Amino acid sequence: MPGMLTPMARAADPDKKLGFALCGLGSLSTNQIAPALQKTRSCRLAGIITGTPAKAEKWKAQYKIPDKNIYNYETMHRLSENPDIDVVYVVTPNALHAEHTLKAAKAGKHVLSEKPMEVSVQKCQQMIDACKEAGRKLAVGYRCQFEPHHLECMRLAREKVFGDIKIIEAGFGFRIGDPTQWRLKQGLAGGGALMDVGIYALQATRYLTGEEPITVSAMETKTDPVKFKDVDESIVWQLKFPRGIIAYCSTTYLVNGINRYTAYAEKGWFGLDPAYSYGGIRGRRSDGKEIAPEEIDQFAAEMDNFAQCILTNTTSKVSGEEGLRDVRILMAVYESIKTGQPVKLA
Amino acid sequence: MPGMLTPMARAADPDKKLGFALCGLGSLSTNQIAPALQKTRSCRLAGIITGTPAKAEKWKAQYKIPDKNIYNYETMHRLSENPDIDVVYVVTPNALHAEHTLKAAKAGKHVLSEKPMEVSVQKCQQMIDACKEAGRKLAVGYRCQFEPHHLECMRLAREKVFGDIKIIEAGFGFRIGDPTQWRLKQGLAGGGALMDVGIYALQATRYLTGEEPITVSAMETKTDPVKFKDVDESIVWQLKFPRGIIAYCSTTYLVNGINRYTAYAEKGWFGLDPAYSYGGIRGRRSDGKEIAPEEIDQFAAEMDNFAQCILTNTTSKVSGEEGLRDVRILMAVYESIKTGQPVKLA
Repeated sequence: MPGMLTPMARAADPDKKLGFALCGLGSLSTNQIAPALQKTRSCRLAGIITGTPAKAEKWKAQYKIPDKNIYNYETMHRLSENPDIDVVYVVTPNALHAEHTLKAAKAGKHVLSEKPMEVSVQKCQQMIDACKEAGRKLAVGYRCQFEPHHLECMRLAREKVFGDIKIIEAGFGFRIGDPTQWRLKQGLAGGGALMDVGIYALQATRYLTGEEPITVSAMETKTDPVKFKDVDESIVWQLKFPRGIIAYCSTTYLVNGINRYTAYAEKGWFGLDPAYSYGGIRGRRSDGKEIAPEEIDQFAAEMDNFAQCILTNTTSKVSGEEGLRDVRILMAVYESIKTGQPVKLA
Repeated sequence: MPGMLTPMARAADPDKKLGFALCGLGSLSTNQIAPALQKTRSCRLAGIITGTPAKAEKWKAQYKIPDKNIYNYETMHRLSENPDIDVVYVVTPNALHAEHTLKAAKAGKHVLSEKPMEVSVQKCQQMIDACKEAGRKLAVGYRCQFEPHHLECMRLAREKVFGDIKIIEAGFGFRIGDPTQWRLKQGLAGGGALMDVGIYALQATRYLTGEEPITVSAMETKTDPVKFKDVDESIVWQLKFPRGIIAYCSTTYLVNGINRYTAYAEKGWFGLDPAYSYGGIRGRRSDGKEIAPEEIDQFAAEMDNFAQCILTNTTSKVSGEEGLRDVRILMAVYESIKTGQPVKLA
């Protein structure tokens, strides 16, 4: 089978790097992922998939990508003939993740999809099914799950260093610029601030509690209905978890400064602020001790982890199933807003 | 009429101090209000009302209070015969505020009631009516409304220094000790964390927005149903205001550390953390400028303000009507928890 990997053979060759093709060459690929690939241990930028010929030319020159490894969305099915490419990293707009994941999986490639995984539970499930059918790995680009400050907070939570967590506050938002960008178009984004950055706050409540929420109740506001005619501007939501933890959360495309979480536990609290940035993350604990691990390149860590999952044939902790869980809750937030009722998730 | 003040005469005598009688000599009166009275310009500790003879003896000795100015809850109607007492400061458990306010008003005294004003809208209204009928002033002990850090945040909000506020996060809670205290008894407290400290976070959202919320949605959790069998332990709630501001809030009796608000506006943010303590309040603004006014005794400022309202015959900004507004919203929070539905307040 073209492009197929033999996990054992790979494991036996630790210096072998998996070939990544970036699918979608927007600012995230350009400014974060491509540079991060240069810092990975087990990955290399092997190819690109883009609908813009000018971008193809630029990337080809900058990263010395051979012509045979350059695709567009119509030709990407031919990835099946290309053994240089092991993984397709889908970095296209949210509502295109399933389409590109399905094409990549059918071409026999493993898939790393940016978050949110997709814009509906159904489309997430299609991605999971397609990769399963193709016998390929699927993971979602939850970079924070590999970031040392977040990992330390997960440890504090799991080991109950401050006892049981009781309340979590989490929020992420920013003031969005260019009103013409795809993030403000429902058809491509599937939602606004919640889908794009609120998902980080939601993820945090889930990996800090280690549980799945059982109820969500949300409230939306739109103070700029022109810019945000298509998608959500600002949302607050609250979650209840099975053992009684409650979380209160926010997201917005309208104001800067909300970028944090705090977990309040029986004997103290801990958290990050800023929490979800590419760098400069700052932790605090109520006992004054530091949360100050060395910073890393989060995208590099995320990609190296996926490579290891492939090489050792293990399931990623940020698997497609994990991505789907978030999307299901995001959809419940929208449902709660629409109906004006809390939504049960259990 | 005994005890009646002539506002003009008082205004003409700025050195005249109004006589305060403290009604209820618990820890708040003992540790905060009585010491604060010594720091006021326009008030003096003239009398006490207590159900505990031993406390009467102790206070009498400590503050040189004449026997004729010492009352209990059965004798306090005789305040009408005592021109030394101008104001009764009601510091008894929440569910007794109306009873003691009504007695004080009927005795011709002005009333300052601790927060929450009472445990139902109806009882708040009774307090307002009684003071109105008696031609006496009524105010609620919202000390933060006189605290310079809070005043500065109100100014930043009102003058739109960072533009329009869009989102507010506010929370106040603490880990409560002694399980036998009145704060944990529904009959005396009328509720738990929400009534006692959540009210500070609610007040903050109202005085930062300058608006009344139109919808509230709340979620409760109880992880210690033994200690909190009677009253609420932890609650999160979200509010929507008429011009679109949304607020997300929390309160708890279970964990320490939540003591803050942040207002996120179009061009930046500002807030306090800790926000509601008797001292040590710390402000922050997104532009790095300081919020660092000189600290004051909040109770002294609150009492001096009420004295000035009496002396100049003006309505307090923390009037009975203001206290009732909060209680109405607190009751809506409980209703939302009970029904599982958002509650409209408009």
